[in-house]
Amino acid sequence: MRNKFAKRASLVKSSETREILKVTERPEMISFAGGLPAPELFPVEELNVACEAVLKVDGPASLQYSTTEGYIPLRNAIIKRMDAIGIQAHLQQILITSGSQQAIDLTGRLFLDEGDTIICESPTYLAAVNAFKVYNANFVEVEMDEDGMMMEALEKQLQENPQAKFIYTIPDFHNPTGRTLKLERRKRMIELASQYDVLIVEDNPYGAVRFSGTALPPIKHFDTEGRVIYLSTFSKIFTPGLRLGWICADEVFIEKYVAFKQTADLHSDSFAQRITAKYMELYDIEAHIEKIKAVYKERCTTMLTCIDQFFPKNISYSKPDGGLFIWVELPASVDSSKIFVECLKNNVAIVPGIPFFPNGTQKNTLRLNYSNTTKEQIREGIKRMGEVLHHELKKETTTS
Amino acid sequence: MRNKFAKRASLVKSSETREILKVTERPEMISFAGGLPAPELFPVEELNVACEAVLKVDGPASLQYSTTEGYIPLRNAIIKRMDAIGIQAHLQQILITSGSQQAIDLTGRLFLDEGDTIICESPTYLAAVNAFKVYNANFVEVEMDEDGMMMEALEKQLQENPQAKFIYTIPDFHNPTGRTLKLERRKRMIELASQYDVLIVEDNPYGAVRFSGTALPPIKHFDTEGRVIYLSTFSKIFTPGLRLGWICADEVFIEKYVAFKQTADLHSDSFAQRITAKYMELYDIEAHIEKIKAVYKERCTTMLTCIDQFFPKNISYSKPDGGLFIWVELPASVDSSKIFVECLKNNVAIVPGIPFFPNGTQKNTLRLNYSNTTKEQIREGIKRMGEVLHHELKKETTTS
Repeated sequence: MRNKFAKRASLVKSSETREILKVTERPEMISFAGGLPAPELFPVEELNVACEAVLKVDGPASLQYSTTEGYIPLRNAIIKRMDAIGIQAHLQQILITSGSQQAIDLTGRLFLDEGDTIICESPTYLAAVNAFKVYNANFVEVEMDEDGMMMEALEKQLQENPQAKFIYTIPDFHNPTGRTLKLERRKRMIELASQYDVLIVEDNPYGAVRFSGTALPPIKHFDTEGRVIYLSTFSKIFTPGLRLGWICADEVFIEKYVAFKQTADLHSDSFAQRITAKYMELYDIEAHIEKIKAVYKERCTTMLTCIDQFFPKNISYSKPDGGLFIWVELPASVDSSKIFVECLKNNVAIVPGIPFFPNGTQKNTLRLNYSNTTKEQIREGIKRMGEVLHHELKKETTTS
Repeated sequence: MRNKFAKRASLVKSSETREILKVTERPEMISFAGGLPAPELFPVEELNVACEAVLKVDGPASLQYSTTEGYIPLRNAIIKRMDAIGIQAHLQQILITSGSQQAIDLTGRLFLDEGDTIICESPTYLAAVNAFKVYNANFVEVEMDEDGMMMEALEKQLQENPQAKFIYTIPDFHNPTGRTLKLERRKRMIELASQYDVLIVEDNPYGAVRFSGTALPPIKHFDTEGRVIYLSTFSKIFTPGLRLGWICADEVFIEKYVAFKQTADLHSDSFAQRITAKYMELYDIEAHIEKIKAVYKERCTTMLTCIDQFFPKNISYSKPDGGLFIWVELPASVDSSKIFVECLKNNVAIVPGIPFFPNGTQKNTLRLNYSNTTKEQIREGIKRMGEVLHHELKKETTTS
């Protein structure tokens, strides 16, 4: 049989992280690799009540085909939560998606022609990179510091890429770095986007999970031109398994998103939408999120303390105020894929940084997740990692 | 703001059928428009038991991120059902999708480059047309008769389009025509596909809902080269709201499908997969399907009898042995969109045939659905439609 695949089939590979996750399913493994929420915090009992209530009152409708736009009470609940963080939206500006991964994919589908340019943080979320690659996009990476994407570097890239389609940014507790874009940069990004007539895709799955510092308004809060497409999800504040996310954008965009979502999966799971809405009607999701924050804060603090204690001193790392990740930068000569292999031998899983760079540069970085391990596992895992790092970095010094 | 949309944004419009469905939500409307299963048959009570069982035994895991390939017990249950219809598959040949719509979309993503050609029935499933348009495909339509796609016409198109990527076919109770591809044509299609080295995408959402005649083996049953990609769904035999479908194909294809599904939505709803598997473990889905068949048979028979009684005699229509649809062909001079408008005035909704023709020819056709209306509604609706048709066809005769 001759090769039938589309050209794009050679561009997109099964995500490295997800392949790593398979290895990490062994029970003896301490995994800092995934981006999994703590499953022991999922409101299982409450969901059982919600399922029963939905099936009792609304059984057939909850299992039938439903509108592409999504279940209205769920969209209204989202509008209420968005209002609390400074985004005023109405019903026609909200589309329910099958996780925020679908929101990213549909964004590529709606905006990207072959060879189009996306401006993004360096590094950035690897599953977004893969999704945009499906539409044959090019990536222009903008340097970050501890306060997120750097605005002078962004302006330079906007000048050099006047046809760029959008800036893709994760301003809150960025994946993979855990960094947050500071306030004045948010305002500046909007100014620059307007000046250079480019859209902003604000991917915000983690913003609600802030466990220290002061909350910052989303970039969309400053948007007066309908230039910001805001993506978020229930994955980090409720459960990821139900695959529910949303897009908040101007109606002119949402209308087109709806047409493309029809081609992708007709609509998101009707039952998942109704039980999530029912949960928010019956229970206090904000109180639930407070519980998540308390646990993640403790785990993050434990990991940072252990890193400080066990890692060599010439390693730098981010100190997140929320979200799920810590980013580690090793000395420039160290290849983190070696560290990854050595850690695996010691039953510790991490993610090497390289796939987070769309153009595949910086090899000396790695990502650690703290949301899905106990304090004891974090202590033991970071200790073992520290031993690997001391050993490998010593080798580096002696050989180089 | 300058226009940012991708070129494909102008090709894909919100599905006409789904837009019509919105109008038909008015309670006084008798709708033959959608393709909705009968919601009163959904096993609501049983699903409640399944939800409780899953949450009790497996709560956190059922709400967590899960593998892209899908929940293994669900894939095993699918393998068992496939075996019963003559397809032997193993685990690595099954991918769970978010409804079979996603299976269609991923098929476009995996195989179609801009300008690629798909060979399909004329007419064909309109949401597949829209999904393939996303990847800028061209459509070559092959004539059908009462026994499905005509093989001489297919061979002619294969000769004229040697670079065609695949044949997209709905062999059982075809949407929109309700027709079934006869046995010798199934064998011939495989022969032709092999001879002209083209893939077959066998879309089979309705095959399990056969209420008369003898079951035919799927085209994939005759596939010795891994040339057939088989798509199916739980939407018509269980519930469409949970959005669960599957792809059965050779591993070399499934591996790539998995990578592309990761970009689309990471994985399908974990909870929906588990409750569906649990339902099949606790209950007899075959007995449930028998109930569906009995009801659909009665509704289909009622509709056919009423058409015979109330429609003008110069109208032809299909007589399906299963599935959800009857296809009506009016005299060549009649535009079914006029009939659609007149029927709506009489609170009867139908779907004009034109969007089912990818290249937009034949205007004198329309599709009727019988699965989601009672016998009384069918009788009343077809009677009203008959009056409209008599009136409109009479006008045609007098004016032309």
